[in-house]
Amino acid sequence: MFTKEEKEAIYKVIYHRRDIRSFLSTPIPENTIHKILNAAHHAPSVGFMQPWNFILVSSNEIKEKLAWAADKERRALAIHYEGEKETKFLSLKVEGLKESPLTICVTCDPTRGGSHILGRNSIPETDALSTACAIQNMWLAASAEGLAMGWVSFYKKNDIRDILEIPPHIEPIALISIGYTDDYPEKPILELADWEKRRSLDNLIFQNKWGEN
Amino acid sequence: MFTKEEKEAIYKVIYHRRDIRSFLSTPIPENTIHKILNAAHHAPSVGFMQPWNFILVSSNEIKEKLAWAADKERRALAIHYEGEKETKFLSLKVEGLKESPLTICVTCDPTRGGSHILGRNSIPETDALSTACAIQNMWLAASAEGLAMGWVSFYKKNDIRDILEIPPHIEPIALISIGYTDDYPEKPILELADWEKRRSLDNLIFQNKWGEN
Repeated sequence: MFTKEEKEAIYKVIYHRRDIRSFLSTPIPENTIHKILNAAHHAPSVGFMQPWNFILVSSNEIKEKLAWAADKERRALAIHYEGEKETKFLSLKVEGLKESPLTICVTCDPTRGGSHILGRNSIPETDALSTACAIQNMWLAASAEGLAMGWVSFYKKNDIRDILEIPPHIEPIALISIGYTDDYPEKPILELADWEKRRSLDNLIFQNKWGEN
Repeated sequence: MFTKEEKEAIYKVIYHRRDIRSFLSTPIPENTIHKILNAAHHAPSVGFMQPWNFILVSSNEIKEKLAWAADKERRALAIHYEGEKETKFLSLKVEGLKESPLTICVTCDPTRGGSHILGRNSIPETDALSTACAIQNMWLAASAEGLAMGWVSFYKKNDIRDILEIPPHIEPIALISIGYTDDYPEKPILELADWEKRRSLDNLIFQNKWGEN
């Protein structure tokens, strides 16, 4: 059971967690990294398959290559926005891969545990969903440790496979930037930049059937 | 910043959270449900698209139909296991959809926010991954509230669409059973049933490139 204070701490970290794109170069203690990875490893997974791996990238040479892949994709995506939206898009800082002292590539192995994973047999993408749960655990633990984390999804998966020598059947689910920051906003960056608003929760809830309030 | 006690509470809920299949019929207070849905709604989402909806199923008639769809799929899956593994599979309790006072179908709308969602343009399945992060937030909040939650992924998506009248382009990501329980194990049910073991975290971590320790 959880005390009132414990519950408050849990909601605090859920509401406080932000997606961060600016980092200090201050190194992260090794045991803190181990704690947040262990939090990730204790996420739920379909059929208890634990499909994740964590590639810890601290090499500046490799981080430069990842940042190159992300920037290439950013420039390609800008072409799909036009006029004012393109200007706004290009003004957003979408990644801090070179700044953060550590990048973690979180992957998903769809073959982990054999061919007939309980639950995954019905919905194959539950392996990636499990990996996302691990990332969320990691994010909350990182926030609790006073760290900032950013989930970068601007890349072509094969660029990341090439750079990190990831086998073709393994999915690079996320590039995670992690480090300390002096810029931790109270609201989502995209809300502050007036890119998108938070929706009203009540409008997202239905009763018994889709569309019924 | 988080105090030592707050950090401990956050790790406690991460390690304590279990996937549960047995529920009491005790009703859940409405404001508790609202709190855990609000925790879900504060998950990160790609391009801040907030692609989720929550269909709260309390109707016994509809819960029976969902349980029928899950049981049909369970029996179909059993055919893929043979001999001892089939016997073991059939002995597992894989869902508690009829027992729990509430089932929540969490969905993902890939069209939410328009055609060019920042980040999702590169990796379309990031919308479902965002929804999984929302489910993980919900799970941790539910655990903090003393509730038990189970993520059921035994179903054909079109059965669930038919039963809950979900439009064809919307993904039913999970059927979540939620309620109180008197059977909250310390370890994952599939670990206790000797179905699968917890892997060693150290073997899942690589340095700078895939496969390097």
